[in-house]
Amino acid sequence: MPIRRSKILVKWIYENQHKMQTLRRCSSTLRYKELEENVQALEHLAPPATEAALPTHQPRPDITPDVSFKYDDLKVALAAPYQLQRKPEAVDLGFGKYFTDHMLKIHYHRELGGWQKPEITPFENLTIHPAAKALHYAVQLFEGLKAYRGVDDKIRLFRPDLNMHRMNLAAKRSGLPMFDGDELIKCIKRLVQIDQEWVPHSETSTLYIRPTLIGTEPTFGIVAPESAMLFAILSPVSAYYKTNSDGAVSIYADPSVVRAFPGGVGNRKVGSNYGPTIEVTSHAAKLGHQQVLWLFGPNQELTEVGAMNIFLVYINENGEKQLSTPPLNGLILPGVTRRSILELASQWEDVTVREEVITMDRVIQLNKQGRLVEMFGAGTAVVITPISNIGYKETNINVPTMEQEHPVYQRLKDTLLAIQYGHIEHPYAKIIT
Amino acid sequence: MPIRRSKILVKWIYENQHKMQTLRRCSSTLRYKELEENVQALEHLAPPATEAALPTHQPRPDITPDVSFKYDDLKVALAAPYQLQRKPEAVDLGFGKYFTDHMLKIHYHRELGGWQKPEITPFENLTIHPAAKALHYAVQLFEGLKAYRGVDDKIRLFRPDLNMHRMNLAAKRSGLPMFDGDELIKCIKRLVQIDQEWVPHSETSTLYIRPTLIGTEPTFGIVAPESAMLFAILSPVSAYYKTNSDGAVSIYADPSVVRAFPGGVGNRKVGSNYGPTIEVTSHAAKLGHQQVLWLFGPNQELTEVGAMNIFLVYINENGEKQLSTPPLNGLILPGVTRRSILELASQWEDVTVREEVITMDRVIQLNKQGRLVEMFGAGTAVVITPISNIGYKETNINVPTMEQEHPVYQRLKDTLLAIQYGHIEHPYAKIIT
Repeated sequence: MPIRRSKILVKWIYENQHKMQTLRRCSSTLRYKELEENVQALEHLAPPATEAALPTHQPRPDITPDVSFKYDDLKVALAAPYQLQRKPEAVDLGFGKYFTDHMLKIHYHRELGGWQKPEITPFENLTIHPAAKALHYAVQLFEGLKAYRGVDDKIRLFRPDLNMHRMNLAAKRSGLPMFDGDELIKCIKRLVQIDQEWVPHSETSTLYIRPTLIGTEPTFGIVAPESAMLFAILSPVSAYYKTNSDGAVSIYADPSVVRAFPGGVGNRKVGSNYGPTIEVTSHAAKLGHQQVLWLFGPNQELTEVGAMNIFLVYINENGEKQLSTPPLNGLILPGVTRRSILELASQWEDVTVREEVITMDRVIQLNKQGRLVEMFGAGTAVVITPISNIGYKETNINVPTMEQEHPVYQRLKDTLLAIQYGHIEHPYAKIIT
Repeated sequence: MPIRRSKILVKWIYENQHKMQTLRRCSSTLRYKELEENVQALEHLAPPATEAALPTHQPRPDITPDVSFKYDDLKVALAAPYQLQRKPEAVDLGFGKYFTDHMLKIHYHRELGGWQKPEITPFENLTIHPAAKALHYAVQLFEGLKAYRGVDDKIRLFRPDLNMHRMNLAAKRSGLPMFDGDELIKCIKRLVQIDQEWVPHSETSTLYIRPTLIGTEPTFGIVAPESAMLFAILSPVSAYYKTNSDGAVSIYADPSVVRAFPGGVGNRKVGSNYGPTIEVTSHAAKLGHQQVLWLFGPNQELTEVGAMNIFLVYINENGEKQLSTPPLNGLILPGVTRRSILELASQWEDVTVREEVITMDRVIQLNKQGRLVEMFGAGTAVVITPISNIGYKETNINVPTMEQEHPVYQRLKDTLLAIQYGHIEHPYAKIIT
């Protein structure tokens, strides 16, 4: 699609959000092609961001990977025809319930010189020693990205370099071996190519990619493991959360529980950040909320919501519409969707974008003054999930997210989806096949 | 051994610590029998504590286990003769490097009614789905206890009921199924009986028992798993830490790193507390320290050291020798050794025992005033490890633990070992075979 048309499409999406929503609901095989036909005549819009021009919201510390595995060493063993599974119906997908026919595995053994040759094999159970450090001391980390089947039937990844960078940061923090992210992207591309028929022919579902790195050394010392395994599995997915009838979620803010703390690992995608949230989330569910809004410190600063980054839209002191999210202070996961939202919205002239500390008092005050317009969570799994209620200290704070005519969250979501599904040519999207 | 003799032994141990240390160093097959012969003529000592009379340092919240597995359902499949391994030499043991010939496995499947029948099988690798929640979200917890071969060749466990209680608390906090601790103890006893020749014939080594509970449901939702596996493996072990030439360890206190936080899981034995400590411990090792002293909060309160509880001995404001450890404030693991130390020392007339907040400033002040006498860490794996140095803010704080003539740590260690190896009849020790 030529650049000019894609710019026009962004504007069209912005101006026709309700039509888009309706269209999206029509059919799981709906393509944006119909939409494209509608945008031929639309006007020119501000030029889309290029990677180089984007503001950098995240430092890129120097990482020296261990001598990495190489894509060129990849060995592929394809599944036999009788091993191939029947693909599930789109309505049954859920999130991470079904897995494709193949997987990627890369072993690491320090005494054998480190990283071994990558292998793609038929999908199978792992054989793990019962003393493996991954099972006792949570020596484990993961990433989540998606493969999207675009309007042009091409398959795209969304900024996979950011996932690789974050995965290496988590490996360093966990005493696990680092690697060359570009080599892993190449291996993952090949895996997706092999299982490409599993990438849903739909814009309401995608193929979720889960690279995982675990410590496999079978000894009880709490030290960096001498052996590890990196594996990647693929799962066709639809929505992550069930929403309320208004299409939004209700969240529960309990100042007595904490997701992460300074000096901890809240800014790294490691297993240890997730297990401890289950009991709290389950308690929130009993009270009728889908997710937990994680607060921190005496001022009850907002940090994350569920496994998403949190965003507010409000009318600021200058009367401008402001999109805000908490800064990366060590407690917050540096989300790829978070960063993309900040970068995309920074290009918009009608929204002020800020990373700033947001306290519960501030949320309550803005809401009382009628200045709080929207709240939403954002992440790869969920894309963007609007929030319409906060349960807090025996009361409910109603957030008018779903009452807006042209909500910012929808505009962002449509823009992200347009990039991911190839309606717009944009450097964020990488065509892999 | 009659009660009177055991009481006399406790006193003898106290008065002959250096002789005991020398004797222990002589041979790995040394038994306390020689010692026993020396105590025949010694006087009567204060009566030993009984379980009922002991102060309770830990609340026992009401736990309703899921309908539990039952020992009576246990299925045993013994290893074939060719599967049996040669037992390692005592000097090679290390900590958690070798495993015995059998293991215990108990599966949980909610859709099959919950806990399944326990099985003892030959030791083998686990088969785990690559999407199991244990590998991605650290849905995992463990316990550590030991089987001791006593002076009478009988094998004992040390307060296993406390491990079972703590394991159930961790399960509740992790969304994992609870169970009847007594039933698990029975299963573990049977496993140890089967592999009893692996319990070292030595008082410098033991058979470490590692029950582990992991979430096995292979889906990506961050929710309580529908399936789980409890397994227990056994490892003959010797010392956990390498000490310095003075027999003590040096620890590193860095106020910028944190082990646990209020509202978190620091008081539960879950994998998430351990993985994030590896990088910090590795940094401490580069600076020449064996372990990390974990501080918390603006006052730099001492919480734990390495994977141990921390104790101080100092001369208090009344001129008494005081044994202190931080209170169970939610950040600290309720150690079985910790509790036993507090209970045992409470019976002694020459030591004041306190649970109290201890800040780094307090440690520095006591040390400057020459009132800090000892510091040590305590836990099942290490028993008691004396500390002789703290690296703190570019300086070293020398703690005179190893300069005491009759140190409290040694007296406690000797008492614990005497109970564990059956030199004293005491309700803490449970004979299993």
